[in-house]
Amino acid sequence: MFTRETAPNVLSPEQEQILHEQAMRILQEIGTDVLHEGAKDLLKRNGQDVDGDRVRWDEAFVEEMVARAPSSFRVLGRNPERSITIGEGAQVWANVGGPPFASDLDEGRRSGRIQDHDALVKLTQATDVLACVQSGAVEAVDLPHWTRHLDMDYSVLRFSDKPYTCYGTSGPKARDAIAMAAIVHGGRDAIERTPVTMGVVNSNSPLVWDFRMADALIAWAEANQPIIVTPFLLAGATAPVSVAGGLAQQVAETLSGVALAQAVRPGVPCLYGSFFTATDMRTGSPAFGTPESVVAVLAGAQLARRYGLPFRGGGALASSNAPDAQAMSEALMMMWATVLAGTDFVLHAAGWLEGGLTASFEKFALDLEILAWLRRIMERGIGFSEEELAFDALAELGPGGLFLESSHTMTHFRDWLSMSPVFTTPDHGSWEAQGSPTADVRANARWKKLLESYEDPGLDEAVDEELRAYIDKRKAEPPEDEE
Amino acid sequence: MFTRETAPNVLSPEQEQILHEQAMRILQEIGTDVLHEGAKDLLKRNGQDVDGDRVRWDEAFVEEMVARAPSSFRVLGRNPERSITIGEGAQVWANVGGPPFASDLDEGRRSGRIQDHDALVKLTQATDVLACVQSGAVEAVDLPHWTRHLDMDYSVLRFSDKPYTCYGTSGPKARDAIAMAAIVHGGRDAIERTPVTMGVVNSNSPLVWDFRMADALIAWAEANQPIIVTPFLLAGATAPVSVAGGLAQQVAETLSGVALAQAVRPGVPCLYGSFFTATDMRTGSPAFGTPESVVAVLAGAQLARRYGLPFRGGGALASSNAPDAQAMSEALMMMWATVLAGTDFVLHAAGWLEGGLTASFEKFALDLEILAWLRRIMERGIGFSEEELAFDALAELGPGGLFLESSHTMTHFRDWLSMSPVFTTPDHGSWEAQGSPTADVRANARWKKLLESYEDPGLDEAVDEELRAYIDKRKAEPPEDEE
Repeated sequence: MFTRETAPNVLSPEQEQILHEQAMRILQEIGTDVLHEGAKDLLKRNGQDVDGDRVRWDEAFVEEMVARAPSSFRVLGRNPERSITIGEGAQVWANVGGPPFASDLDEGRRSGRIQDHDALVKLTQATDVLACVQSGAVEAVDLPHWTRHLDMDYSVLRFSDKPYTCYGTSGPKARDAIAMAAIVHGGRDAIERTPVTMGVVNSNSPLVWDFRMADALIAWAEANQPIIVTPFLLAGATAPVSVAGGLAQQVAETLSGVALAQAVRPGVPCLYGSFFTATDMRTGSPAFGTPESVVAVLAGAQLARRYGLPFRGGGALASSNAPDAQAMSEALMMMWATVLAGTDFVLHAAGWLEGGLTASFEKFALDLEILAWLRRIMERGIGFSEEELAFDALAELGPGGLFLESSHTMTHFRDWLSMSPVFTTPDHGSWEAQGSPTADVRANARWKKLLESYEDPGLDEAVDEELRAYIDKRKAEPPEDEE
Repeated sequence: MFTRETAPNVLSPEQEQILHEQAMRILQEIGTDVLHEGAKDLLKRNGQDVDGDRVRWDEAFVEEMVARAPSSFRVLGRNPERSITIGEGAQVWANVGGPPFASDLDEGRRSGRIQDHDALVKLTQATDVLACVQSGAVEAVDLPHWTRHLDMDYSVLRFSDKPYTCYGTSGPKARDAIAMAAIVHGGRDAIERTPVTMGVVNSNSPLVWDFRMADALIAWAEANQPIIVTPFLLAGATAPVSVAGGLAQQVAETLSGVALAQAVRPGVPCLYGSFFTATDMRTGSPAFGTPESVVAVLAGAQLARRYGLPFRGGGALASSNAPDAQAMSEALMMMWATVLAGTDFVLHAAGWLEGGLTASFEKFALDLEILAWLRRIMERGIGFSEEELAFDALAELGPGGLFLESSHTMTHFRDWLSMSPVFTTPDHGSWEAQGSPTADVRANARWKKLLESYEDPGLDEAVDEELRAYIDKRKAEPPEDEE
């Protein structure tokens, strides 16, 4: 249930076409700024109109380039059995990434530390519902700014054997990520043959490809690692305050990024990325879960299908300051949209709080419960075996019987009923006797138990040494000038 | 978006047929107990096999009776402009009903009082998203058991002018509800021509129509008031522990109730009611929001479509003891299923907590926010005016511009962006300075403000006197023997 095939078409064919045409008009008439000489040279050689930093893109070129991108691709896991395929129906979910703060009920909110990062990686490794790890799960603010990307990517490579998205907010960082991935996965040639990591690029909306992002995009394209091209659109801030206006801008920015990547390396996997939400005009902060953000995910997925690109969007996004009723209302609005849209790849599916400023351990545990439910709905459907139809069980009990202690119930309830360790149903008296714990309190116990269950996948000692040597060497070098 | 037409068919045509055949086999081979002499006589006269209390139903009879029920119908509001049509696409939502306890952050959890009931009725009247009021919003436990139904129905008739579901857990109570509705709506003949209230009947699952419910069903059928036939199915308790088994039982119980109603009065409106959820086997309590309950709502709606009956199901159902992250996770799982299913009529869309044991004022306010979002998604779609496409606004700002203070944003953000009074996004420092309020705290302020905004629709003085005289007369009579 809830696949790409059943995703609702929230845009009519005419509306799809209008958005496409407006996106092409944006690229041709307004154009984008591209603050990267190499990229501009390449685009110029490909016949694009380059005037200073402004690039005006030709529709035929953009469409030709986008057509080069595959509709699906595989990402190899360090454990090959954990490899993932993106774009063929299965929805791949990954943990939160990017917050400068971490929080849990024990220590409260604090700047992110590498130990928090390690813990989030281990939690992602330990749970079945997340098939992919995101590096930068929380920013390791306790480590030096210029080199902490090395430590965060190492955290992923050391503590998880799942496919991952690497850190890479600039070209040098993306190149480090590629070098480290190559060390672990048998060299650069090997990872160019089959990707092992993915990178996220955000245009500087509206309509700017800044040096860092363009440079990272080029690095990943050259290495044939999949690129998640995601304009970061806040309606009324970095995009128009209307959904249709934001979608046209999204298409323009995403396709120009994909076109640049394909010009660098034909066939490099690219995702159509959607991150489009409302701005709370009272505070200037992003507001998640609103109708605009829900509709935008559904429409974004439809546009990705139009262009034959796998879709990245949605997530358990929430604006709330606490893992409370607001946080889960917002997260469920977004995750239902994500699931309905048949989304191929989902970042921030667990742990995102406070508009992305905080990686919350309790929110992480709460999200996992939702993800497990949604996964079960998608994969399981309704069983129609004789035992599940249960005519005999009903006939045996007859009118007025009680199934609670029937052998049919006792035999099957563990397999057929979902019982959550976090969402519980004690009677009111028992609950009060426990101290009236709200769900965040149980979520606190839950993530700790999940962390205890973590099993170290190990890392070959020689590989580990080579990785560490690379990191040490890079830390000894002077910081690169990135701009 | 999300209408009956787009509702997913979670059952294949073959599976639908299997469930239908099994339901008919249940009715024919096992049968139901019917603990009501009048009902048994009527069924016997209609050719059904009556053996003691056991009635074995004939498929042709059941199908002929069900075919008599209309696929849609109108319920007149005391304010005619608030009248509703059920079964023609619009989803009608009503407040919580039935809990013995009320709770709010100020007074905590206590036995329900008539003042709580009045407040919940006023809140339902005051909000746009609830088009129907449910009597018995909370049980007025402070009033005498035998007569409080009169006070709760009066509470609805006095403080609201929306269509309503009446109290009626027995024949005499249903007849009181009808008598009171007739007083307000111009007499019995008038309400028989166009219904003004609806009644809920729950079979005593599995497969028992007890005296009280059968008697209430007959009373409403005789008065031509719509009947919401809803087996109360808990997988593993009152139904088999499997979804397919529960659905077959649901069809059998619902259709037998509808058949009885149609035998009493051909053409009386009936809804196919679904209330089917998992049992938390750790506590024996109902567990809401689980995959089983989500899938059951979707499948129930599909079965209702098969039989041409309007569908009642879902709601903002939650098991949690508090209006917390669990409560809203559960409620949103259920409400998304409700919306996706194209549900015609929804009870308990706001305020339900603790598996239905508590009517929570804060949960009520939280649910209203979700309902407003869902309503906007369903009704609004994506606007494609030139102003919404916003090419000129983007061209004017150009690459790197900021929409926050643009005239386009300033002109439109109030209409185009959803900003919730309960779900807010203060920066962390401001939020801490406010005392780190979680969403339930803001919900507390919200329902009080909504209650303040309540406008008394008034009630004609003569009608009011007649109603009060009826209630006084009934209170003076000895309690009826109901069994």
